[in-house]
Parts: sequence; structure tokens; C-alpha cells
Amino acid sequence: MQAYPKSPLMGQMMDQPLLISSIIEFAARHYGASEIVSRRVEGDMHRYNWRACLARAKRLANALNALGVCMGDRVATLAWNGYRHLEAYYAVSGSGAVLHTINPRLHPEQIAYIVNHAEDQYLLFDLTFLPLVEAIAPLCKGVRGWVLMADADRLPAETRIPNLLSYEALLAAQPEQFDWPLFDENSAATLCYTSGTTGNPKGALYSHRSTVLHAYGSAMPNALDVGSRDTVLPVVPMFHVNAWGLPYSVPLSGAKLVFPGCALDGKSVYDLFEAEGVTFSAGVPTVWLGLINYAKMNNLKFSTFRRTVIGGSACPPAMMDTLMDDFGVDVVHAWGMTEMSPLGTACGLLARHEKLPREEQRKILRKQGHAIYGVDMRIVDDDGQELPWDGTSFGHLQVRGPWIISSYFKEEGGSVLDRGWFPTGDVATIDEDGFMQITDRSKDVIKSGGEWIGTIDLENIAVAHPAVMQAACIGIRHPKWDERPLLIVVKKTSAEVSRDELLSFFEGKIAKWWMPDDVVFVEALPVGGTGKIQKNKLREQFKDYELPTVTRSN
Amino acid sequence: MQAYPKSPLMGQMMDQPLLISSIIEFAARHYGASEIVSRRVEGDMHRYNWRACLARAKRLANALNALGVCMGDRVATLAWNGYRHLEAYYAVSGSGAVLHTINPRLHPEQIAYIVNHAEDQYLLFDLTFLPLVEAIAPLCKGVRGWVLMADADRLPAETRIPNLLSYEALLAAQPEQFDWPLFDENSAATLCYTSGTTGNPKGALYSHRSTVLHAYGSAMPNALDVGSRDTVLPVVPMFHVNAWGLPYSVPLSGAKLVFPGCALDGKSVYDLFEAEGVTFSAGVPTVWLGLINYAKMNNLKFSTFRRTVIGGSACPPAMMDTLMDDFGVDVVHAWGMTEMSPLGTACGLLARHEKLPREEQRKILRKQGHAIYGVDMRIVDDDGQELPWDGTSFGHLQVRGPWIISSYFKEEGGSVLDRGWFPTGDVATIDEDGFMQITDRSKDVIKSGGEWIGTIDLENIAVAHPAVMQAACIGIRHPKWDERPLLIVVKKTSAEVSRDELLSFFEGKIAKWWMPDDVVFVEALPVGGTGKIQKNKLREQFKDYELPTVTRSN
Repeated sequence: MQAYPKSPLMGQMMDQPLLISSIIEFAARHYGASEIVSRRVEGDMHRYNWRACLARAKRLANALNALGVCMGDRVATLAWNGYRHLEAYYAVSGSGAVLHTINPRLHPEQIAYIVNHAEDQYLLFDLTFLPLVEAIAPLCKGVRGWVLMADADRLPAETRIPNLLSYEALLAAQPEQFDWPLFDENSAATLCYTSGTTGNPKGALYSHRSTVLHAYGSAMPNALDVGSRDTVLPVVPMFHVNAWGLPYSVPLSGAKLVFPGCALDGKSVYDLFEAEGVTFSAGVPTVWLGLINYAKMNNLKFSTFRRTVIGGSACPPAMMDTLMDDFGVDVVHAWGMTEMSPLGTACGLLARHEKLPREEQRKILRKQGHAIYGVDMRIVDDDGQELPWDGTSFGHLQVRGPWIISSYFKEEGGSVLDRGWFPTGDVATIDEDGFMQITDRSKDVIKSGGEWIGTIDLENIAVAHPAVMQAACIGIRHPKWDERPLLIVVKKTSAEVSRDELLSFFEGKIAKWWMPDDVVFVEALPVGGTGKIQKNKLREQFKDYELPTVTRSN
Repeated sequence: MQAYPKSPLMGQMMDQPLLISSIIEFAARHYGASEIVSRRVEGDMHRYNWRACLARAKRLANALNALGVCMGDRVATLAWNGYRHLEAYYAVSGSGAVLHTINPRLHPEQIAYIVNHAEDQYLLFDLTFLPLVEAIAPLCKGVRGWVLMADADRLPAETRIPNLLSYEALLAAQPEQFDWPLFDENSAATLCYTSGTTGNPKGALYSHRSTVLHAYGSAMPNALDVGSRDTVLPVVPMFHVNAWGLPYSVPLSGAKLVFPGCALDGKSVYDLFEAEGVTFSAGVPTVWLGLINYAKMNNLKFSTFRRTVIGGSACPPAMMDTLMDDFGVDVVHAWGMTEMSPLGTACGLLARHEKLPREEQRKILRKQGHAIYGVDMRIVDDDGQELPWDGTSFGHLQVRGPWIISSYFKEEGGSVLDRGWFPTGDVATIDEDGFMQITDRSKDVIKSGGEWIGTIDLENIAVAHPAVMQAACIGIRHPKWDERPLLIVVKKTSAEVSRDELLSFFEGKIAKWWMPDDVVFVEALPVGGTGKIQKNKLREQFKDYELPTVTRSN
């Protein structure tokens, strides 16, 4: 780290590094009886509290020491949201090693690449992933041991996995006494690879300092707003950017934590919400679909669920309306990325918006919202010139702050900052009141005659048509305009709509020159490991597509 | 600062120091239109917003530079809560100098002592304090200039004050362009002297890091819970531990800020609450008395006021009941001290308390509550042994954390920590759920036959009697028991109660051996600069008092 000049007069405050271990110590000591409830992959429920969680995390820390894990060593997980994964979060980082959470939805070869790139020493995994580990173990020669997060009697009789250990057996052999080491707060704490659509995955290497600051920032009223009276169910997985920091912000708030394990279908999630009195949840838009459908089909309401944060990709307006109007659940639209720990913005109305008509309020809530203190942002044009905050100028969104990466692990991708700012790859507007709205990805935006067309707006309008299930818009080469939009649509089962009917649905909703030049109906859209539509694949697939406007306009 | 060991693998996050300047930059940039409204000491109202506040703070920073103020230099204020004081908060600390806020209620000689001890280079003061500054200026030879926070036409024609300047004239001469310097976050930012009851005042020297971390911690839902939709009126003065950090936590939350100036009478405060739509306020118990009385006498309710934080000293139970039951204002009981920036704990119910009967809930809310993440606490006996958290064991309360001092300015008082913990001088219990309750000051607790008697409980019971206005309890030497409690009481105007009537009022409310041995009625109690009863003066006054129990028990 850079050494900043010191004042001739330094403050006289206690010198305590910001360490992840202090979070679980705080929760166990000050909110020791607050519960952690997990639906286990074994099928049953598990309950304990922050005090017991700390005791087991300390056993695991002792076990890691006994296995020879040293400060800075990477220890990986392939696991759902559950109490053992939580213990690993604290035991690994708290003892000075680096927790590397892996997305099990990636292709096995990609997982093996990541394990080898990270030089993981041990890998902890849930029972569900035994077949996956059988497949990748031979490809990961550097891993010294594989830890099945289950009792010893769950270990398979025969296996190709070398040095396969039982998590519970490891813990049982260790004492609960462990003193967390004190070390420099800029030491690495966790490692998370981005599921980049091009090239190999790249790692974001968070520090203890960045994690603690992100936990403070994300717990604040303007962000996740987590307090001791909440019961929080993170649907967003702990293998995906640390579940948006909830495994840290929940214990520092003393709240109750509920883990859904691998049962993410509508019924399982609904039942857990009701049984445990969940007040707050967080996840990407797709996970809410199942829950909403299940509740609607069975004519159910939520008794305690009051607020949810939706991020990862833009929340479809219809989903926001359903949650708010039909279920009375406040939706907080949030934005961030792996490189940002991940939270950057969250959207809430200002006091002066309270008297606006409902539809005007809803328009604001569909934006990605205000930066959380700790994050600064700006929009720039192709030449790097800053653009005004007027709600209409849109440009490349750049961010900076103490929980944003300065480079990728092992310097993959080289120098990533643009004069101190991290280029997010998103295109956005920011209005006079500081509300940011993503209009596109930089690589997806369509450049037509020197102007930009945002594809997210076009897709949102398309999916608002009753016959449309999914839609993606991409730019197609055009001799006169450089690029023009092509709309690619998956229709709902047994629904019908023609090309011209769909195009006329756009009339009056967009500027005329934003109108897609054509519509293609397909059976399915290519989807990546985190549930996002892979537009690069669509562009490849349609790279020779000839727009009907080409002959007409030439 | 101590160098903690570095991991072989350091995180790869942006290296940004936590600096106070980033708070106002954030507010101006992301919530630029949120208002700051001040009742000026000149008598009129002043309105602007965070964007304009930043511009003027930068003018002031340029002016300080022009005056030759260097990094680490102390710049003092004698000022009420108002927009100019806020500008000084950011201009002084942001430019690398140290803001020294002085309590104008101290004795002029004490103020002169503090100014000289701090080696203040400049002193900024409100028009109200012109006579005070005339009195102390000759005693403060080191001060290079005195800045009247007003227009140039308010400067007196004749004055003994050397180098008297107009704040507005200084700002008018400077540009709005100023780049905040980047420096080590452990650099000193603000200096605040404790109004110690014994010895000379001692300075707490906060750093940029401690101030920013305190701002994060104090804004969280479990603490002050400040969000962008709030309108915050700090009644607690900006000369008293930085108004509990509100000048920092409010802008990082984007809220509207309302300053009462010097008009703290019930009518003025009530009118401001209603005119500006105040939702949240904070102050010591005494300031609420005037407001409550005014509202009651005029049969008024609050339209927008929803929540208040009360700290500084324990909130009398009757005041909490009045605010909650009669006015529907949630009371958050908080505890802290100058040496803690100041917030340590805040009290809120847990989810499982929501179904308790009202009186049971109220008992919990009277406690000082849970530590805010960033603060750790423990209770120890006279030998330094940690005591259990059982709600009944009471011991010396000790704290530690990154916003707690490690020593006083210029090492006054020598080494203050006890094996890394700061001894608060309070005596407290902590229950199984982590709720802390102050039972006394260490020096006030009465040691009777080897057991401790908490005087705060006894005083709270006394003031609940309809004839009692104020009460203080002190320990009186006793040949058999070492000390026994004496209750000293100020009766309400035209109210009557006898010694025996008052003692019988305690029956059934306390353990028998806690019963005061005698009652003395007085006209008034000695009160210090911050409104607290000076028990050391009472102990001096009654040091030869003979308890009626002495002869009886011997």
C-alpha cells in the first residue's frame, strides 16, 4: 500500500486493525443468543446461535492449523448457504488464511482451472458436490486434502478423491479454545472469481479492511438496513461475492440468520420464510420468480417478509410491482459487482418523493439508486471526459473506494484502473439527485449513427408484452448506421405474437430511432453460470444476420 | 501506530485513506440538494444545501491556508449548532488542521486554560460569544487571530481583541476551488476536552480514521439509524463531543440537517421541529424537559418527530414514558463518553421482546443497551477479574475499539489503559442478552459492608416521587459498614414530603440494605458545565455529616 503523508500531530486513538474475526467475536459476545437456522443438504434442519457458531469456527481454525494451513494459504469451498459454510467464512479468514468460494454452477473444467489458479490447499464441500469433486480431484494435483462438510459416516466407502476428510471428524478432534491472530488489516481475506463472459475467470482478492468497511457500509439504513430485530434469509449464494456481504453484515447487526441450503424452489423458500419469520431477504431476480409463482398459485401471503434487496441484474418492473403491490414487500433495487465486494448503490425514495403518485415513485425505484458512502462514482464518454448528472446523458460508469479492487489476483488482465477509477463495464445515467440508472453493458450498447441505444430499456419493454417470456437485444452490423438493434425473443408457452405486433408494442414508448430493425423468435436463450443471458454467444450466433433494413436503407 | 504483521498474501483493494473530507464530498456529490437549515444567532433563518456547504467549506479551507494554518495546527471554535460551525468542521479537519471545539459553558479561566493547552492558532466564534472572547483574549497570547463568525459589519468599532477578523469577509476573498489533501488516516482531526470533575480538563484527540469509523457505526440501524429520508435536529451541541458525530453521520446518510442555534427553549425548538419536519433528534435529558413542558402546556403534538436518542446521562424513566406514551416518540437510550467519540451503546428491543407487556419492554429500554459493532466491552471487579454477564453482577465497565482513545492529548493523566482496555469510570451490569446498564459512576458507588450500592437506582426512585424535583445520593463514612447512603433532595416548588414519607416510598422497590440511612433537603444541587450534578462537591459539603444510624448500629 501507498504511504500517505502523516500529520505532525497524529490522533491518539486505539490502534486496532479491522479484522473479520472481530465480527463473529462481536456477535457471539453481544448477541450470542441470536439464532442461525439452516436447511441442511442432508435434508433436516439445524439450529444454533452465534455463540455456538463461534465455538465451532474456533474448532475449525484449530483443525486448519493442524492440517498445516498457513497465513495467506487459500482454502476453497464448494457449498450452499448453510452454517458450516458460515463457520468456514470465519475460521479460514479469521486465522489468516484466504477463503476462496467457488461457484459450483460453473463447468467442472472451469472449476478445476480456478482451483489450480488459486493454488487452493484444501477444498471444503457439501455432500451434494461429491460427484463434482470426484470429477475434478484428478485435475487438481495441488490440493492437499478434500473436506466433506458432513459427519464421518457420510464418507463414501470407495472414492478416487485423495485425502478425503470429514469436516465433523476434524472439528470433533479440536478444542474450542482459539485466539484469533492480530495482523495487518490489508491482508487478504477472501478470493472470489468473476464469471467473465470472455477469457478465463479473474479473481477479486478482498482484504480484511475492505470486508469490514463493506459490512459497515452495507448494513446502513440507505443500503441493506439490517438491524438486530431482523431475520435475514440470504437467497443470494455464499459462493457468489460472499452473498453480498450478508455473512458479515448480519452478525455485526445481531440479527437472526436463516440459510436455505440447496432447496431454492418456491415451496421450500416460502415454507422457510413462514416458519422462521423472515423479515428481509436478498437475491437476483430469477430466484424470486419461483417464490412469487408458488405464492400466487396457492393464494398465499407473507406474514413477516417486509423488504427485499434485488440486484445482480436489473429487477424487471413487473416483478417489482408484484412484490410491492400484491405482497406488500418493499423492493430495494441494488447494484454492484464482484470487483466491488459487491455493493455499490441501493435505491430508496427521498423525503420529497413521498407525495409523488405511485407510478412516479415506481419510476424512481426502478433505478439502481444512490452510491453507498464509501463508493464514489462518475460517468465518462469514450474519451474519458466526465459527463453531467442530468438523468439523460449516459456514459461508462466508473467507481472508486476502499472496497473496490485495484487489480485482479496475480495481476490477470494487467492494469485495470483508468486514472484511479475502476471501469465497471456498465453504461449508466445519473440524475441531479444522484440516482444512478444502468442503461446497458458497455459491450452490449448499440452504437447507431454515432448515438448510443441502450438494450436494457428495449428488453424491459419486450418482456412487458403478455406473450413474451424472455428477450435479448443485440447490435447487428449495418452498412449505413454501423449497428442497428435486433430483438431476439422467447415466447411464453402457448402464447402467440407476430413480429409486427411486437414492434408496434414499442411505439410511443421509445424514441423512433431506437425501434428494433427486426425480431427473431427462438426456443431458448443461452444462459451463463450466474443466470445471465450470454449476449456474446447471441452476437456470435447472429453475426451474419441480415437486417431487412439493410437493403431498404441503401 | 503499531505495525501488525502482514500476510504473505495482501488484498488487492484500492488504497484510500478514511478522511473526513470524503464525507462532505460524498454528501455534496450524491445528495447535493438535501437541505441544511439553521436558526442563526443573528436571529433569522438560513437555508442552503450540501452542495453549497461544500463550496463554502472550501472557501474557508483556502482562507485558513492564507492565514498560514498548517497541517496539525489547532483551530478552535466557540459556537452553537449552525451552518458556519459545520463548515469549520470540514474546512479545518479536511485541510489537515485540527478542529478544537470548546464548551462555552465552562468558566472563562478554564476556557483560557484549554485554549493555551491546545496551543490554538485561531479561534472562530459566534456573535453571542463576543463578550466572552473580549474576556479571554488577553489570557491567550498564543492565538494569532480571532474570527467572528458573522458579516464584517458585525465587527465591533472598538475592541481589545487583537487581530479580530470577519468570517464572511475571509470567505468572500477566497475561491470555491480547493482540492482536499490526501494524508495518513491516523492523522489528528478533532480535539475535544473532557469536563473532568477533578483536575484540569484533558483532551481527546480523534483521528480521521476514528471519526469515519464512528460515523459508519453510529449511522447503523442498531445505533442512531439515520437514513436519507430523515430530517435530523441535533440538540446536543457541536461543542460537546462533536454532537455525537451527527455532523458526520448525517451527511454520509444524505439526510436533511436542522440547527437550532442558541435558541434551545421549548417554544423555539418545538417551532423548528414543526416548521422543518424534523423526524429525529438527539440530546441530553435536560434539554427535553423544556420541550416536553412547552408541548404539554400548550396541548401540542409532534407531526413528524418519530425518534430521539437520549444520552449524556441516564434518561429518567418518567421522561421516557412521557415521550413514548404521550407523544409517540421512540426513545433510544444511548451511552458513551468523550473518550469514545462518543457512542458506545444504544438500546433497542430484540425480536423476541416484541410480545412482552409494555412495562417489561420499558424496563429493557431503560438500560443503556448493546455495544455498537466497533466497541467491545467488559465488566471487571476491583482486582481486574472479568465478571459474568448475568444482569446482576456489577463491576467497572471497560471498553476498547478503534474510536476509543489510547491516551489523552499531551499524555495528560499518563497511561490510561488497563491492559488494553479503557476504564470508563462507570459501574455497570450486562445481562445474558448483552444489554448493558449503568448502575453508577465508579467514584460514586457506595461500598457498604463489602457490597456495592448503585446510587442511580436510588436517585431514579426518589425523583419518581411527586414532590421531588432533583435527588442525589452519596456515600457517607460509617464506622461499621464503611459507607452508607445519604439521599440529598430538592423538593418541587410548593410541594411537601417528609424524610420518613420519602424513605417509605423506597420500600419494596429495593433490597432492604440499599435503604438510604438519612434524607437531607436542600435548596439546590451543585451543577457542572455540562449540566451534571457535581457529586464531588456534595461529598465535600457533607464530609462531616453524621448519619443517625451510626449511634444506633454501634
